[in-house]
Amino acid sequence: MIERLDTFAIELPSWGFADTGTRFGKYVQAAAASTIDEKLADAGMVHRLTGCCPSVAVHVLWDFPAGRSPTQIADVAEREGVRIGSINPNLFQDQVFKYGSACSPDPEARAAADEHIDRSMAIGRDVGSSALSLWFADGTNYPGQDDILQRKRRMEDALARWHQAMPDSMEMLVEYKPFEPAFYHTDIADWGMAAHFARKAGPRAKVLVDTGHHLPGANIEHIVSFLLSERLLGGFHFNDRKYADDDLTLGSIDPYAVFRIFLAIRIAGERHGFETRHVGYTVDQSHNLKPKIEAMIQTATTAQELFLKAQMVDLDHLVRAQDAMAIVDAERCLRDAFATDVRPALREWRRARGLPEDPLEAFRESGYEARVGAERQARRGGNPASSSYA
Amino acid sequence: MIERLDTFAIELPSWGFADTGTRFGKYVQAAAASTIDEKLADAGMVHRLTGCCPSVAVHVLWDFPAGRSPTQIADVAEREGVRIGSINPNLFQDQVFKYGSACSPDPEARAAADEHIDRSMAIGRDVGSSALSLWFADGTNYPGQDDILQRKRRMEDALARWHQAMPDSMEMLVEYKPFEPAFYHTDIADWGMAAHFARKAGPRAKVLVDTGHHLPGANIEHIVSFLLSERLLGGFHFNDRKYADDDLTLGSIDPYAVFRIFLAIRIAGERHGFETRHVGYTVDQSHNLKPKIEAMIQTATTAQELFLKAQMVDLDHLVRAQDAMAIVDAERCLRDAFATDVRPALREWRRARGLPEDPLEAFRESGYEARVGAERQARRGGNPASSSYA
Amino acid sequence: MIERLDTFAIELPSWGFADTGTRFGKYVQAAAASTIDEKLADAGMVHRLTGCCPSVAVHVLWDFPAGRSPTQIADVAEREGVRIGSINPNLFQDQVFKYGSACSPDPEARAAADEHIDRSMAIGRDVGSSALSLWFADGTNYPGQDDILQRKRRMEDALARWHQAMPDSMEMLVEYKPFEPAFYHTDIADWGMAAHFARKAGPRAKVLVDTGHHLPGANIEHIVSFLLSERLLGGFHFNDRKYADDDLTLGSIDPYAVFRIFLAIRIAGERHGFETRHVGYTVDQSHNLKPKIEAMIQTATTAQELFLKAQMVDLDHLVRAQDAMAIVDAERCLRDAFATDVRPALREWRRARGLPEDPLEAFRESGYEARVGAERQARRGGNPASSSYA
Amino acid sequence: MIERLDTFAIELPSWGFADTGTRFGKYVQAAAASTIDEKLADAGMVHRLTGCCPSVAVHVLWDFPAGRSPTQIADVAEREGVRIGSINPNLFQDQVFKYGSACSPDPEARAAADEHIDRSMAIGRDVGSSALSLWFADGTNYPGQDDILQRKRRMEDALARWHQAMPDSMEMLVEYKPFEPAFYHTDIADWGMAAHFARKAGPRAKVLVDTGHHLPGANIEHIVSFLLSERLLGGFHFNDRKYADDDLTLGSIDPYAVFRIFLAIRIAGERHGFETRHVGYTVDQSHNLKPKIEAMIQTATTAQELFLKAQMVDLDHLVRAQDAMAIVDAERCLRDAFATDVRPALREWRRARGLPEDPLEAFRESGYEARVGAERQARRGGNPASSSYA
Repeated sequence: MIERLDTFAIELPSWGFADTGTRFGKYVQAAAASTIDEKLADAGMVHRLTGCCPSVAVHVLWDFPAGRSPTQIADVAEREGVRIGSINPNLFQDQVFKYGSACSPDPEARAAADEHIDRSMAIGRDVGSSALSLWFADGTNYPGQDDILQRKRRMEDALARWHQAMPDSMEMLVEYKPFEPAFYHTDIADWGMAAHFARKAGPRAKVLVDTGHHLPGANIEHIVSFLLSERLLGGFHFNDRKYADDDLTLGSIDPYAVFRIFLAIRIAGERHGFETRHVGYTVDQSHNLKPKIEAMIQTATTAQELFLKAQMVDLDHLVRAQDAMAIVDAERCLRDAFATDVRPALREWRRARGLPEDPLEAFRESGYEARVGAERQARRGGNPASSSYA
Repeated sequence: MIERLDTFAIELPSWGFADTGTRFGKYVQAAAASTIDEKLADAGMVHRLTGCCPSVAVHVLWDFPAGRSPTQIADVAEREGVRIGSINPNLFQDQVFKYGSACSPDPEARAAADEHIDRSMAIGRDVGSSALSLWFADGTNYPGQDDILQRKRRMEDALARWHQAMPDSMEMLVEYKPFEPAFYHTDIADWGMAAHFARKAGPRAKVLVDTGHHLPGANIEHIVSFLLSERLLGGFHFNDRKYADDDLTLGSIDPYAVFRIFLAIRIAGERHGFETRHVGYTVDQSHNLKPKIEAMIQTATTAQELFLKAQMVDLDHLVRAQDAMAIVDAERCLRDAFATDVRPALREWRRARGLPEDPLEAFRESGYEARVGAERQARRGGNPASSSYA
Repeated sequence: MIERLDTFAIELPSWGFADTGTRFGKYVQAAAASTIDEKLADAGMVHRLTGCCPSVAVHVLWDFPAGRSPTQIADVAEREGVRIGSINPNLFQDQVFKYGSACSPDPEARAAADEHIDRSMAIGRDVGSSALSLWFADGTNYPGQDDILQRKRRMEDALARWHQAMPDSMEMLVEYKPFEPAFYHTDIADWGMAAHFARKAGPRAKVLVDTGHHLPGANIEHIVSFLLSERLLGGFHFNDRKYADDDLTLGSIDPYAVFRIFLAIRIAGERHGFETRHVGYTVDQSHNLKPKIEAMIQTATTAQELFLKAQMVDLDHLVRAQDAMAIVDAERCLRDAFATDVRPALREWRRARGLPEDPLEAFRESGYEARVGAERQARRGGNPASSSYA
Repeated sequence: MIERLDTFAIELPSWGFADTGTRFGKYVQAAAASTIDEKLADAGMVHRLTGCCPSVAVHVLWDFPAGRSPTQIADVAEREGVRIGSINPNLFQDQVFKYGSACSPDPEARAAADEHIDRSMAIGRDVGSSALSLWFADGTNYPGQDDILQRKRRMEDALARWHQAMPDSMEMLVEYKPFEPAFYHTDIADWGMAAHFARKAGPRAKVLVDTGHHLPGANIEHIVSFLLSERLLGGFHFNDRKYADDDLTLGSIDPYAVFRIFLAIRIAGERHGFETRHVGYTVDQSHNLKPKIEAMIQTATTAQELFLKAQMVDLDHLVRAQDAMAIVDAERCLRDAFATDVRPALREWRRARGLPEDPLEAFRESGYEARVGAERQARRGGNPASSSYA
């Protein structure tokens, strides 16, 4: 079982190392990264310590400044021991996107979206990225504000157009979200709509499941199973939540739910033969209070623990109990695996690979945060970092 | 506008005239119907008073007793001035359905489901019904209880099989519900899953939207628009809710939301040319406290009022405002229509058709409830009515 | 730590051994108990196996048949190795309670409530119960149905009256619930209202927290802390839920949340000196699918495991981290305790007390369920058990 | 009835005229106000047109720049035809408040909070404000992050201290919110906690109900009734929402719910004799898309319409129906009032007071927005306005 960790990789988000916050403000951190170099350095540090975060999702608007080519950025990543992962366009920050991007009634907004996606795909081609990861803030705030079906058609058209222009090496990931920042309707509100748009776009379009993007009570592992069986699951954005899209550390609120997601993936693959190896796991968290690098390490190790617990479920036993309609026994297979303390096995796995047994402690002992905090503050002349939203 | 009411029909549910309740018990009513004859008499009364409820959804298990042929029942309906509408199988009451029906791991349960559906379709053929309306209680209560993807396949198989055997005159309506009575997962949890199963089943399968079957916050009018544009919307089960599937009178909690649903249908048809005439509206309410017939009359007239308000939206004005991204103006088109008092117009429409202007008052003046209450109690020997769930 | 289990007791509900269901029906079990004798026998079995369930909550309406005195029932309990715990009146099943009990506009309903509570308190006195546990189905289904403030006053009056008449040995527990079976408002909708009514009633009235009776997202451990610090927490009804009041097995959906509740109680007691020893834990679950006795055993052992994990949190470490605003460290104290596998310690604890190490396995090996199933079915002449709601 | 509008006043929020947004960014408006002078000018314009917005809630941090005394600001208000209303401190924007303000483990944060409140109260005294309106972002993001009961005590202490120091003319309003920006717990999470803190603080402390600050399904009119009957309701923050705290225009999503709140207030006063005249209504909305002044006008007129509909409920009829437990009739009293088109009466009321019949049209005809947009942009040198959060 433990060797399955060898191929379990979690992508880090460049924006997770920058100062972010809520609509009420940001609490800045000295060590927050403000340039792509700093972000890649931080990500590299996390990967060196955990051994499971080899790639970094990048954000086109914030990470590819004028005057530096994408390949230069990719070289920086390589020097830091990581590689560029998914390309994340930004279709919400510019004022032109006030009424949406791909779905806006404003042709200028749609043209701006096309242009930004073109640039994103070019970057993807240059750095050899395999994924164009699309999250849309598109939607409306008021009943009647816009024609929902016209917006649907615009989204279909845009995705099909972009899919056609997408480099062969790339996959398109279509994310859904029921609300925020749009508050009456969002153009891709749930997995069903994302699946529809992905299918219409073309064979290389898949659905991206952000664990925080569901209405209260939604059964995410059911959705994941469904998408896998339809060959439509592309990947995950990982985070946890108690209320809405809270962007808390994975597993910090409901670890059993994360375990069940990993188990659903395992069952779809092992029991039903659906392809699951391509499914990408990316952290998407906004740490307003926690130190950013520590939170990333915590996320990566938590993901490993819950993934490993899911591997420990005795599937044969489970299937027999299910076939016998023995609910208590079937459930017990999950509970027993979840109750197992996998931390010793994980420490062993790390030791065997020359990694620190406790990556968080190792990070603290390294003095990295204090050092880069001092350097970065000095470099910014005492100003807070500013790169990324909120 | 007002003449659009001429073709706006709402189907009544036979089970809405019987005593029903919650898991904590039923409060019985003397006038509650306990036989299909009584239910059809009550429905006929509602139709005579409102003029907009020409058909009655029937429940196979409760409404087609041994010893009476479906055509006999249809004759009773005709005598009462109504006709048999959708056929509603029952795949949850028999003990064999403990772990599900079409999705059960138990082959006997699946066979029982097949058999009951066969009977339901035969009834549909005999009475000339145009719809087989499928709601499944299938699901699980605990993580791990059953293999979700195997259940998915079983559902696909069953629906395809039934679709093939379905009389040409019938349409299959597939309902979704996020929870209850299953509490961990339901096999058709949302519109996306219902749409998937309908598509797999065949061209005459459509999705049924029950307004109370959504997670908190779901934008139902968005779902309705989406389904119409995919030619997958078959009809509605009407009721209202504040919390879960509360089965309250339509529009009693959030009338503006119902108005927006009617508007979404109108826009899909008038603006986008999608077919909407086949969309069926059926009441699905459980009145534990309100007098049943009064509640049905209230529901029918409320539906007419909100439908009519939706017809009063100035679509040209709306489109211009939407194109100009004038949010306040666009929204105002909806608000103005909703603020209009349509009751005088409705009274006028009723008068012109020889209907009582206030159907509820007319019903009270008729003395019907007291009369049938006395008769029915006498016939039952003082026992409460027993037909239908809860 | 482990010795804290010695005083950790969980009360079993008599109604948890009977057939119950949802509004859509019940799935009956051969071994379901239909008499108070059978229920007490089952509870005694659970206690013999787990050693932590010494008392049984009883339901006045179903458990105290005419012709048998309360002390006779208490003797039966004693013979089965358990004692009578909290007394649970039923203020919802009789037809007179259609519009509520204590809050009903109908004086007959209020009188019936008074009478039933009198009888409940007399039973409590006779059997030496220490708690009168009050759950009200009171509420309304429609806006305007009744005058909410008049109902509030009626509830205040009733509780004060009952408090005054309550035997000295008893405590009054006031439960809250946001909805179901009332669907527009419930007269005691949240902890704030329950606390208000308890305070008004008198010093021996406390709040009962049912873990399933909260709106989506509610932070239950926060409420628990708050109530303890106001000396207003009386006890718990234990169950789990994913959507509404699903009455699933404790910890089956979100075990980390249960752990946090136990931790909140521990912190209130150990860190802040609030009294927590009187807090009663009672199972309140409706197992429609799971075998009832197995589910009770599973619940009791799950509660022990999660209670024990909460005892393993290093409070000194936690406090230091909190004082230093070291979020990651503080959170880690909880995660580490939760990640610990406490099952070996629990087995050890059981062995030391002469209990079976795996109570569920021991129950299965006992052949009890098959035996009583056969006996009970025979005694009922093949009819399903009928005692309790739904 | 209509004359009740004469005393129905709605306070405008200074921050509602500034650019605000979501955590994903702001869409700026040329006419957005960036100084207190501009905000007061805009508010004055709204009041001149609607006649019902005589006061302006001010935000201490953004509206009282160094170098200008509070009385100078009050003079500006007077010139614009309005007066200063509630004083709103800011206890979340400064970096010192990272872990909370009054509840922070950091004594510096608590001292900063004290100091800011002192300043706020001094301003309140100087400008003759009658309300100190307290919203706290205090809370935690992770289980274990801080000791909830210690935080509770800190909040109690702070509010008691502030209450004692508060000018006699002022009332303290304590707002609650279940989440955001804190994502695991907020220190004042619901009305029950707010009521507790208000009671502890002193007799001039009351609860502020923000209509958007509730968990899904909460019955706000029930809470309002409860608070009024306990003499604990101080006022409202008005806005609407579909999902979380969406800050949409009042009544834009669920107008019937707003109507029911107004009716609850009326019933508490007229039927039960509770004091309601002091209850303050303040708009608290963040218009990221709608033009700010238009949205304020729309809000004020919507509030008038829904308030007026609530006055039209026939209370005598309602009470008779409630006493008779005639649910349909009781509900009908509400429905009939809500269905009434009150816009003609409102136009008449405005005409009689020399106000424009359609304030929104009058605003547009005034050319105000274009004029101040040009002026303000020029003054800012083309930069967006920056004052207020998000």
